[in-house]
Amino acid sequence: MHSCEAEIRPRYAETDQMGVIYHGNYFTWFEVGRSEFFRTLGYSYKQLEDEGIILPVVECKCKYIKSAKYDVPVIVRTTIEELKGVRITLKYEVLRKEDRELLAKGTTLHAFVDKELKPVKIKRVNPQIWEMLSAAR
Amino acid sequence: MHSCEAEIRPRYAETDQMGVIYHGNYFTWFEVGRSEFFRTLGYSYKQLEDEGIILPVVECKCKYIKSAKYDVPVIVRTTIEELKGVRITLKYEVLRKEDRELLAKGTTLHAFVDKELKPVKIKRVNPQIWEMLSAAR
Amino acid sequence: MHSCEAEIRPRYAETDQMGVIYHGNYFTWFEVGRSEFFRTLGYSYKQLEDEGIILPVVECKCKYIKSAKYDVPVIVRTTIEELKGVRITLKYEVLRKEDRELLAKGTTLHAFVDKELKPVKIKRVNPQIWEMLSAAR
Amino acid sequence: MHSCEAEIRPRYAETDQMGVIYHGNYFTWFEVGRSEFFRTLGYSYKQLEDEGIILPVVECKCKYIKSAKYDVPVIVRTTIEELKGVRITLKYEVLRKEDRELLAKGTTLHAFVDKELKPVKIKRVNPQIWEMLSAAR
Repeated sequence: MHSCEAEIRPRYAETDQMGVIYHGNYFTWFEVGRSEFFRTLGYSYKQLEDEGIILPVVECKCKYIKSAKYDVPVIVRTTIEELKGVRITLKYEVLRKEDRELLAKGTTLHAFVDKELKPVKIKRVNPQIWEMLSAAR
Repeated sequence: MHSCEAEIRPRYAETDQMGVIYHGNYFTWFEVGRSEFFRTLGYSYKQLEDEGIILPVVECKCKYIKSAKYDVPVIVRTTIEELKGVRITLKYEVLRKEDRELLAKGTTLHAFVDKELKPVKIKRVNPQIWEMLSAAR
Repeated sequence: MHSCEAEIRPRYAETDQMGVIYHGNYFTWFEVGRSEFFRTLGYSYKQLEDEGIILPVVECKCKYIKSAKYDVPVIVRTTIEELKGVRITLKYEVLRKEDRELLAKGTTLHAFVDKELKPVKIKRVNPQIWEMLSAAR
Repeated sequence: MHSCEAEIRPRYAETDQMGVIYHGNYFTWFEVGRSEFFRTLGYSYKQLEDEGIILPVVECKCKYIKSAKYDVPVIVRTTIEELKGVRITLKYEVLRKEDRELLAKGTTLHAFVDKELKPVKIKRVNPQIWEMLSAAR
């Protein structure tokens, strides 16, 4: 199973007046993790999109355990939870870098679609990426 | 059951290069809906926070059905899904204003905590807001 | 001179750990003001963009006088500062709604360009919007 | 003169429907550059804030030359433009990493203030940081 660890340094812009990272911003961090996940697989998301395949988020969720703080580095650990014909679910863990304490975890479910947002059988349209993702699961 | 409809005009800043609203921004919209929900109940979230009670998000999720677009008004409809001793779950529906087509739906689960993030029995600490929320369920 | 006042209720997501609205978010508010300015002129920015004319920001600045706070409504007052062949400068004032205290002010300079980002003589390409903007100055 | 180069990989969340990075997000990038600037000086902004000195943005501006794109790494190069008793101006250049093409440049003017937002003579209150900043100019 392929996993990827992306390091993020929380930004001031991402904090809120509770003094912690605003909950909605974790989904941007998941995106950073996902982006890095594809890159380390050898096929960047940008490349995929340049070829006309996009992966809109169909569902997402996050569970918050401890607060992330400004300037305290975190790791987003990304793995594949499920891979089906036209859908993929990615799983994320946000860890404090220093002690690997789990701060949050979540998932995003994506559809493989083309520019007209029509579902795409990724196995048929791009067997290479399908192989890579299957091997990474 | 109390429900509240908040109107939002999607901002350019909220779009992404897919030409639609970035998925993570719906959680900000949920926040706008929640804020309005409390206000229409007669007790704004700001007021609650000024009294030392905060409602961090413990879990959240969203399911995307159709894309929201720049400058096309949407409605966030907020209701209470569940109310327990130290927790509340709010439910959101994002509707296109024009035809009330459902674009997305989600929930946020919140804990009632004090400034030190310690759980607070809202029923005991602030019976007034407890009554309001109970009646609104 | 046409001016437009757009009301905004500051969001929790827009605050930072200083307990005020993060400075970078005022540019999103300027965008809301600008959007409303075009709409009240009778030609929405969306409409303009649908016709292939876009208005990227070439320069922008903001001066902060007093802090905007979560949930305390503000007004963004937008006017045209300058209109030239291929450029327009808009001016913004952010006022606290309650007492019209000036919180911030700024400008954005835009180029009129087409989808390939080539400069467009708006007067020639779309005389109607040129007339409107000239009259609004 | 001390300068600091911080690398940023533009996020999907930071793009807009023009297909480029939304102009307002460059101010967040400036913040990343500034944060890194203080850290490489040997005194992180977090540390400064923990000691009760904060640096709110009083003025800021940005000039956009070429568009930054999703996933194409940029460098934010930060230097001190001016240092006065209660104020500091930082200067930023955003360069495409690959060829060091200049994409944008800007400045932020900050006041040194305490938690009550009262101006602070940094030279007197924290001579160490004053020395560092003076040497870095």
